[in-house]
Amino acid sequence: MNKESVGIVETKYFHIEEPIDLDGGEVLENVSVAYETYGELNKEKSNAILICHALTGDAHAAGWHEGDKKPGWWEIVIGPGKALDTEKYFIICSNVLGGCKGTTGPSSLNPKTKKEYGLDFPVITIGDMVKVQKKLVDSFGINQLSAIIGGSMGGMQVLEWMVSYPEMMKKAIPIATAAMSSPQQIAFNAVGRQSIFSDPHWKGGNYYESGVIPRNGLSIARMIAHITYLSDESMDIKFGRGLQDKDEISYDFSVDFQVESYLKHQGEAFVKRFDANSYLYITKAVDLFDLSINDSLIDGLKDVEAKVLVLSVDSDWLYPTEQSADIVTALNANNVDVSFSEIKSNYGHDAFLLEKGQLNYLLANFLSENVVEDLMMENIATIKANANVQDAAKLMLEKHVTHIPVVTDENKLIGIVTSWDLSKSIATNSNHLTDIMTTTVKYCNAGDTIEEIARKMRKFDISCLPVVDEDMVVLGLITTDQISNLLS
Amino acid sequence: MNKESVGIVETKYFHIEEPIDLDGGEVLENVSVAYETYGELNKEKSNAILICHALTGDAHAAGWHEGDKKPGWWEIVIGPGKALDTEKYFIICSNVLGGCKGTTGPSSLNPKTKKEYGLDFPVITIGDMVKVQKKLVDSFGINQLSAIIGGSMGGMQVLEWMVSYPEMMKKAIPIATAAMSSPQQIAFNAVGRQSIFSDPHWKGGNYYESGVIPRNGLSIARMIAHITYLSDESMDIKFGRGLQDKDEISYDFSVDFQVESYLKHQGEAFVKRFDANSYLYITKAVDLFDLSINDSLIDGLKDVEAKVLVLSVDSDWLYPTEQSADIVTALNANNVDVSFSEIKSNYGHDAFLLEKGQLNYLLANFLSENVVEDLMMENIATIKANANVQDAAKLMLEKHVTHIPVVTDENKLIGIVTSWDLSKSIATNSNHLTDIMTTTVKYCNAGDTIEEIARKMRKFDISCLPVVDEDMVVLGLITTDQISNLLS
Repeated sequence: MNKESVGIVETKYFHIEEPIDLDGGEVLENVSVAYETYGELNKEKSNAILICHALTGDAHAAGWHEGDKKPGWWEIVIGPGKALDTEKYFIICSNVLGGCKGTTGPSSLNPKTKKEYGLDFPVITIGDMVKVQKKLVDSFGINQLSAIIGGSMGGMQVLEWMVSYPEMMKKAIPIATAAMSSPQQIAFNAVGRQSIFSDPHWKGGNYYESGVIPRNGLSIARMIAHITYLSDESMDIKFGRGLQDKDEISYDFSVDFQVESYLKHQGEAFVKRFDANSYLYITKAVDLFDLSINDSLIDGLKDVEAKVLVLSVDSDWLYPTEQSADIVTALNANNVDVSFSEIKSNYGHDAFLLEKGQLNYLLANFLSENVVEDLMMENIATIKANANVQDAAKLMLEKHVTHIPVVTDENKLIGIVTSWDLSKSIATNSNHLTDIMTTTVKYCNAGDTIEEIARKMRKFDISCLPVVDEDMVVLGLITTDQISNLLS
Repeated sequence: MNKESVGIVETKYFHIEEPIDLDGGEVLENVSVAYETYGELNKEKSNAILICHALTGDAHAAGWHEGDKKPGWWEIVIGPGKALDTEKYFIICSNVLGGCKGTTGPSSLNPKTKKEYGLDFPVITIGDMVKVQKKLVDSFGINQLSAIIGGSMGGMQVLEWMVSYPEMMKKAIPIATAAMSSPQQIAFNAVGRQSIFSDPHWKGGNYYESGVIPRNGLSIARMIAHITYLSDESMDIKFGRGLQDKDEISYDFSVDFQVESYLKHQGEAFVKRFDANSYLYITKAVDLFDLSINDSLIDGLKDVEAKVLVLSVDSDWLYPTEQSADIVTALNANNVDVSFSEIKSNYGHDAFLLEKGQLNYLLANFLSENVVEDLMMENIATIKANANVQDAAKLMLEKHVTHIPVVTDENKLIGIVTSWDLSKSIATNSNHLTDIMTTTVKYCNAGDTIEEIARKMRKFDISCLPVVDEDMVVLGLITTDQISNLLS
């Protein structure tokens, strides 16, 4: 399939009618959510995937805004034929509460004062961000998301969803994240905030009217954070000790090294696109994030129902693999169906935005229909035991199948009849189905994994299995043809 | 031996008469060096150890300044009975060039303008710091230091000494350091400098007259750096997610977590003791540090003569063990006598200031007199071959020795006479030394290790070896008594 972009997209807005009760005790009214969607929501509303963005991300996850030079921030995995296949899934991504990219945040107008909130905006949590996302998802009439996926702070939102709305998703993929911010993570954020507080242009958060933003403070906060997103190795490869626009060290305080120039540029570019107060609120939400209950992450994750894939990055020192391992351990202790992979990369934390090949492979594999339920044929022909051989032969021709489950009046599986059985009936001159059908029939359940049943079929050398529920009622059929299609 | 402090000490000042030619091409005049010394310089001036301090350290490495509540920064290893034993060694520590603790730096008065230098101070290098230290060492009449030791930026100075003045030290111990600053290390320093530049009170470096220092900028620079000095694990142990002076999160921008409070305090305390411009100059010197020549560290370290112990810290992510391993590899390639140990600690980079037990053990072992030269008796009795037995006996009684090397007029070893040989002369009624002395005498060289000669003495069952140079001239004697004292 051609791996393409979703093309030109637009940010849309959703206005939440009811007030939001925040974790901090305050109530926020008139909340607006900026979001984008890619692909089509199917009739069953069962193919929606929610993408959660990181600290300074936005709703624009894929495609191109008219006139833009760069696509959305996760273009590498979203689009036709990519892991988050827009020909198959309906992708939703919204800007977080507290942000500055269209969703209500400290730079929004306070309806009570008609001025920007500034520090009058209430302190919010990752839980509050997720509450707002839930309203958006509900607005589509979606009862269960096919998956929720996000990296870094986006991964925190995924974890929060798993805990707050356990029944709302089939699958969840938290990437390069943690179930609670560590003191080192808090420390980096806290210094960034201090840097903003210290900028005289910040003015206690009331800088909107002046038209002068606290650019130095925000820029330094970004530079600090940016160092933590890269690995030492990636910096070595990217910059080494290379000099910037000079052949020799100049023995002054101008920029000597490429890495200095790069960071400075990152800081300067950031202040053009991000609000300093939003940076304060969002980093605070990250610092407050802690899913453990009484120091137990096992207790904190006890209600999770989703099937989970936890991903980390081997060179990520900001959200190291150990924090992902803690999540996996706690989920395992709760008998959650969880798997784990470590992305091999020298990019550091940023790998979740960059490692195209591994991300597409891991996401596609995990999202792919790899349980029987996702793959089985549901509208299948069955036949009653009192039917005769001719009825079965006609049905096979008509439905163009080689296997027909034989069932009771209650549709319970009692045997199977195949085209080979029919050949046998000719040889033995039998006319009753009961004479030729196989009654020691193998079957499987809807929740069995494809891997399991593929093994079973190979072992017993059979090419088709009826799928039954706990009462042996036939739900469908699964064939080796379907499985081999999947694997190809 | 009682492990004590050196007690009350004072910082002294050394004025360098001649101008210093700096690596950047400028010339600095009227340089003054703040230094402290502990212990006594011996007659031979062979027992001096130079200590090099880290980024924000000073000359006050040990003991107490009158009225102070805290001892010098490396009190844990300096003092009577400690690894840097002041009853044995003469310890020198000086504040670096560019500093603000007594040695000439940007806050010193510019003799030309009679005002503080500010940014008129020339950019300096680690090499320049070492040039100034060399003048100080020379002023004591020391021809060779027994050792040079330092951690972090102090380790860079040690490495620079090894390269710039290879004959000036017997031993060298660079700790938790690197032979060149990596882009990540440069990045953290660069952001710290940006933070100072951004503080409106910095005023292009001319803040001395105003009386208002760029405290916010310097404080944030320190907070950033401080995070890098600690390991994630040590922060977890020290703070976890503990709240500061509150039982519950307060959902505002006051300090929530202990780690925030700690860092803020570190920043505030630092601005009281350190000059912002010095911070700029010293971090710049660290960034410029690179001992490789044409990208080859092997070439860069080719002239090293010292015996070297490289130490790193397993949890140090700022100066990771790989950077120490690079130094060891390059020294090995140059056939330098180098050994390596990794300190086991969860303190992170700061372990070089804290791991008392391991540091004392590793430093003491490496500094201990483990070559013959360090241990041999030098002022020994010798006797000429034409002497008679009575002369030898009288000399033995007078010098209270049991072994006397027999030498030529040029003091070259030709044999040895022992108290046992004298007993033999009585039995055989011999009077000439040549009749009784051992001419198949075993000997050793000054550079032999104690381990080697201990094995030799055991093998040949001898208790005393003459030490000779390449021309067989007798330099001294070494006995099993001395060796056994050492090992005890």
